Amino acid sequence: MNTVWVRSSRGRYPIFVGHGLLAKSGVLLTASGLKGKVMIVTQKPVARFHLAAVLKSFRRKGIRSQIHFLSEGEKAKSEKELFRLLHALVKYSFERHDTVFALGGGVVGDLAGFAAAAYLRGISFVNAGTTLLAQVDSSIGGKTGINLREGKNLVGAFYPPNLVISDIGSLSTLPDREFRASLAEAVKYGIIRVPQLFDMFEKKSGSILARNRKLLTLLVTACARIKARVVSRDEREIKGERMILNYGHTFAHAFEQALRYKTLLHGEAVAIGMVCAAELAVLLGLLSPLEAQRQRQLLERLHLPVSLRGFHLRVRDVLFAMMRDKKKRGGALRFVLPVRMGRVVIREAIPIPLIRRVIFSAGGRS
Amino acid sequence: MNTVWVRSSRGRYPIFVGHGLLAKSGVLLTASGLKGKVMIVTQKPVARFHLAAVLKSFRRKGIRSQIHFLSEGEKAKSEKELFRLLHALVKYSFERHDTVFALGGGVVGDLAGFAAAAYLRGISFVNAGTTLLAQVDSSIGGKTGINLREGKNLVGAFYPPNLVISDIGSLSTLPDREFRASLAEAVKYGIIRVPQLFDMFEKKSGSILARNRKLLTLLVTACARIKARVVSRDEREIKGERMILNYGHTFAHAFEQALRYKTLLHGEAVAIGMVCAAELAVLLGLLSPLEAQRQRQLLERLHLPVSLRGFHLRVRDVLFAMMRDKKKRGGALRFVLPVRMGRVVIREAIPIPLIRRVIFSAGGRS
Repeated sequence: MNTVWVRSSRGRYPIFVGHGLLAKSGVLLTASGLKGKVMIVTQKPVARFHLAAVLKSFRRKGIRSQIHFLSEGEKAKSEKELFRLLHALVKYSFERHDTVFALGGGVVGDLAGFAAAAYLRGISFVNAGTTLLAQVDSSIGGKTGINLREGKNLVGAFYPPNLVISDIGSLSTLPDREFRASLAEAVKYGIIRVPQLFDMFEKKSGSILARNRKLLTLLVTACARIKARVVSRDEREIKGERMILNYGHTFAHAFEQALRYKTLLHGEAVAIGMVCAAELAVLLGLLSPLEAQRQRQLLERLHLPVSLRGFHLRVRDVLFAMMRDKKKRGGALRFVLPVRMGRVVIREAIPIPLIRRVIFSAGGRS
Repeated sequence: MNTVWVRSSRGRYPIFVGHGLLAKSGVLLTASGLKGKVMIVTQKPVARFHLAAVLKSFRRKGIRSQIHFLSEGEKAKSEKELFRLLHALVKYSFERHDTVFALGGGVVGDLAGFAAAAYLRGISFVNAGTTLLAQVDSSIGGKTGINLREGKNLVGAFYPPNLVISDIGSLSTLPDREFRASLAEAVKYGIIRVPQLFDMFEKKSGSILARNRKLLTLLVTACARIKARVVSRDEREIKGERMILNYGHTFAHAFEQALRYKTLLHGEAVAIGMVCAAELAVLLGLLSPLEAQRQRQLLERLHLPVSLRGFHLRVRDVLFAMMRDKKKRGGALRFVLPVRMGRVVIREAIPIPLIRRVIFSAGGRS
């Protein structure tokens, strides 16, 4: 088991990465000083694979628990589901020292984390991410929240967990497409911060796709370390440090919105977004075409989409989504652009024709 | 104008206390480095007296603003009203550097503050409390939240404001009964921390009741200083330091709940609660009967209720409410008990017969 520590406004917290950790949940909670009862928040498909192990480990340590099922998919991140959980916490007399335990992907962690933050103005929170995306990204850093009909993650809290449990074993139950899509975020960490991680991806892409247990432990630990370092320095996303995590995301969010969150998984949109960001960096003379090529080839080797071809997206719809997002999110349209492997810069005020050209070369329709 | 500084997890923030400050809101916001537009959150009765001055001061500094009216009374602290405000923030494209400006009493500050905390995971927040209760208590310290049908303040956030504006002028528009009730919380600060404040109350109760401008400025500033010091040391109510602010409140909450939040104003319940807590301290040999008597006499001089007579409350209903609150709020039944003027201790495990006796002597019916 590897342990990565994160500094946060609520004190530092550990991320435990290893195989079979869900079956040790009870021990990990107790060892982390958590007392009281636990509300396990999960979704049916996840529960089928993992709930029994968690419950058994709680029983063994004498931890009382309740189970709360969220509705399935992204629609669980709603006002309605948030208050359903809050009322359940009241019903079972949860108190400040009791714990909300998120068992599932990013959706579960985001909703359960926000409920933990808001209930009695904050109770203990454990994030046990069962997807690769949760383990390398969303379970670390304290971003929690729900969607409004007007947009995603518009309401929430920065609420660091008390601990994070990343059981590599749970990754074996993920559908292929979802697993691959999440690899895009892992590749991202290599490009923005750690060239060696990118190198490992290039050398071992086959074993990674085959979900080699040792490699995945290495991979998740490496990503957790990078994200932990970034969010420890800029928890509330104020200093810009945390912004580098958005590499590829200015494009990706626009693709997702223009496609109304259908067709592309988030990680797939990020893969195409990173290709676009690298292309933009090349056009601006920041990155060598060879490096951009290297990134694109790796993504292809991981069976990730690298162009918009086939998605019937119009360039102007993507631009429109980008502008709306910009307006909603705060003034400037910012791009995280690679300058070499492991190093990125943040640029604003990119000429619109350049952005248009990049989306067009990526297969956007005129 | 007096300035009191509070340390918080979001950086330190100023409390401005003075006469006519609402008419200087624009200057105060600008001077505090707040940029962008402002959502003024208020209720109709407050707006009638104070909105014009605020709007004029914003116009003079070129600050764009929107006005959002909450429904009236305590029912504004609801899920429905929270999301109505959140949707308004989306509608007018509020961004992270924009500001929510609460203009009103504790209800407005609590709801608006929680919306500011949750919208985009936190935007700027100014708390301009127009009631004495807000100015001496609820606008300081970052407690925000809403009620659920199961209980008050069950959902919320610790979210320190960017600045607090306490305009003494706004106190002249308060109904007599409300003004007097809020004095109970001010008396509380004297008893728990600053004997001189209690002395001032004893000497100047007439002028205070006549709302002498200078005395009220002194009073609000003194209370703000005490609360600021306490919450600076224990923002999240973890260390127990903040608990001393609950002097009189274990009883008061039980009275309010047993009366279903009718009949007694919060401050009035606190006045009777402090009499009970002092009586309990006397029975436990912690406080001299003379000191308890002094406190009771001052409250009477301020025309505050000091007994339950006339409210038709049964001792066992009060005890039941106390036990339910205890269960909901976390384990132990805790009492803040005075040992001498300016000094309190926290005690658990008080024998139930003693508590029963105190409520009975305070006029609870058997």
